[in-house]
Amino acid sequence: MIRTPYLLFLGDAPDQLTAKVAQGIADWNPENVVGQYRMPGCQADVGASDMTLQEAYDKGARTLVVGVANRGGVISEAWLTVLAEAMEIGFDLASGLHNLLRDEDVLKATSARSGATLHDVRVPSVAYPIADGNKRSGKRCLAVGTDCSVGKMYTGLAMNAEMEKRGLKSTFRPTGQTGILITGKGVPLDAVVADFMAGAVEWLTPDNDADHWDHIEGQGSLFHISFSGVTMALIHGGQADALILAHEPTRTHMRGLPDYPLPSLEALRDMVLPLAQIANPDVVIAGVSVNTKALGDAEAAKACQNIEDRMGLPTVDPFRHGAGRLVDALVAL
Amino acid sequence: MIRTPYLLFLGDAPDQLTAKVAQGIADWNPENVVGQYRMPGCQADVGASDMTLQEAYDKGARTLVVGVANRGGVISEAWLTVLAEAMEIGFDLASGLHNLLRDEDVLKATSARSGATLHDVRVPSVAYPIADGNKRSGKRCLAVGTDCSVGKMYTGLAMNAEMEKRGLKSTFRPTGQTGILITGKGVPLDAVVADFMAGAVEWLTPDNDADHWDHIEGQGSLFHISFSGVTMALIHGGQADALILAHEPTRTHMRGLPDYPLPSLEALRDMVLPLAQIANPDVVIAGVSVNTKALGDAEAAKACQNIEDRMGLPTVDPFRHGAGRLVDALVAL
Repeated sequence: MIRTPYLLFLGDAPDQLTAKVAQGIADWNPENVVGQYRMPGCQADVGASDMTLQEAYDKGARTLVVGVANRGGVISEAWLTVLAEAMEIGFDLASGLHNLLRDEDVLKATSARSGATLHDVRVPSVAYPIADGNKRSGKRCLAVGTDCSVGKMYTGLAMNAEMEKRGLKSTFRPTGQTGILITGKGVPLDAVVADFMAGAVEWLTPDNDADHWDHIEGQGSLFHISFSGVTMALIHGGQADALILAHEPTRTHMRGLPDYPLPSLEALRDMVLPLAQIANPDVVIAGVSVNTKALGDAEAAKACQNIEDRMGLPTVDPFRHGAGRLVDALVAL
Repeated sequence: MIRTPYLLFLGDAPDQLTAKVAQGIADWNPENVVGQYRMPGCQADVGASDMTLQEAYDKGARTLVVGVANRGGVISEAWLTVLAEAMEIGFDLASGLHNLLRDEDVLKATSARSGATLHDVRVPSVAYPIADGNKRSGKRCLAVGTDCSVGKMYTGLAMNAEMEKRGLKSTFRPTGQTGILITGKGVPLDAVVADFMAGAVEWLTPDNDADHWDHIEGQGSLFHISFSGVTMALIHGGQADALILAHEPTRTHMRGLPDYPLPSLEALRDMVLPLAQIANPDVVIAGVSVNTKALGDAEAAKACQNIEDRMGLPTVDPFRHGAGRLVDALVAL
């Protein structure tokens, strides 16, 4: 668990895209953001108040979150100076960088001296159990994709936000680095050891109120041969009551695999349902989430309508059209 | 790669079952076994010649393999004395124990001084790549089970032995600790980090002669919710040309999961084939391997015949009836 609220560290980001993780936190969890910290030359701005480390600490910020990619995979001297100073003031540090904070001598030493915690969220910090398959109380929704990177995280975040807006009981359950930094907790599933993947998902989505929904962040795809094992563990560890099919209609082949064609939504439906029924015989497919970023408004509406007609399932782009109809489908179960 | 041949360390095993791993090595790879080393009180015997460390070394043995479970999860002082002495003589050590050799100070120190290698085969020693899904030359066969522990390793070993006997090109590819110790190499798949599982299987089964068969050791089951992700990675990383369905007909529920019924062989066939076709559209189900250990001779024959009639596939218990008909099915492809 990462202490909140956050000060977002944007470093010397050369452009907005480099600060994508910080932007995700600012968009999806603004109540946990006290401000942003920008170094000289920073070209990114996630819309939070600029402040110094001490100002942010005085306003209650407790973790400095590295929400920015580092150039060339190196944590620069300039960054290290700021990060160490933050720990001296009283901040913990959190990062989803490939380079680990704990591998930097100066950060490790400062952490030891100051008592600050270093959260490298790419590395599991929990000894997850082996999955036991016991039925858990409460409801769970999982987005599964025809491919990787088709909007599964966004779908879960949007459905969770919509449920919270309606006053329904709901929690987003991150399984990747960005999601973990957005919410402050979760499981970095792609870094978990094989035997414990499904158990990690069970651990992430424990017993809850009967009318509470977990929105589990999906990973990979059953049709993506590099990562299908991770998807499988989510399906069985997650014991989903509802599945959302996620799709990007303009993609021509599986991400990073030019020889592998994209499956149809029908093929995904027919593959995932019997697998999910092993863990929960009552599971249903509740809707379709379409990532229409590459389409104009009219095309996007038409793409969703075509899929809805074919599949007989509520179909929306949650970013463009809102997640309301997907949430309606869950509530109606 | 573990140096061969081996001296099998049976320690002070209180019974034969405790030395199951050593027995597997003696059964499946006798040409790599120079002898066995038994301490006072040892009640196990795998049928190899008893010898001292020095005798075995002089006969060419180069690795002392801990082929026995340790009591209470502790490597005893008595064992440590023998293991350290072996390294001083010139042996490497290999072990599939949960406790790692490298975590024992005396072994680590002796290894550093003598230059001996400590092989803890439960821990991956390779930085496996992410799977790229590229088509590889050569043929691959994978056993998939209705459950865990239904004889998948045994099936692969038996088919490989039969092919070698016929002079065909064939390699057994271990994915678990016992298989790795039997052959001296392999991938401890259940200990690989999630993102690299399928890539580890690709690494294990590289390009080969067009008429060469890899027999990939199966793990878990698509129907076993604790480990299905590992099975999935084997199916996609393995790019199997042929699948063997493995089954234990007397089991009443999934291993360790009393609430989960065993699937039928038909259900396994219908689930696994479309998943395997993603990685290799030409994959076929070549036969059924039945573990009939719990049945008498007549019952075993009848069980296999019943399955063969239902499934229309050659069906044998490779331990009881030999793997000849399964190999015939591969050769006929």
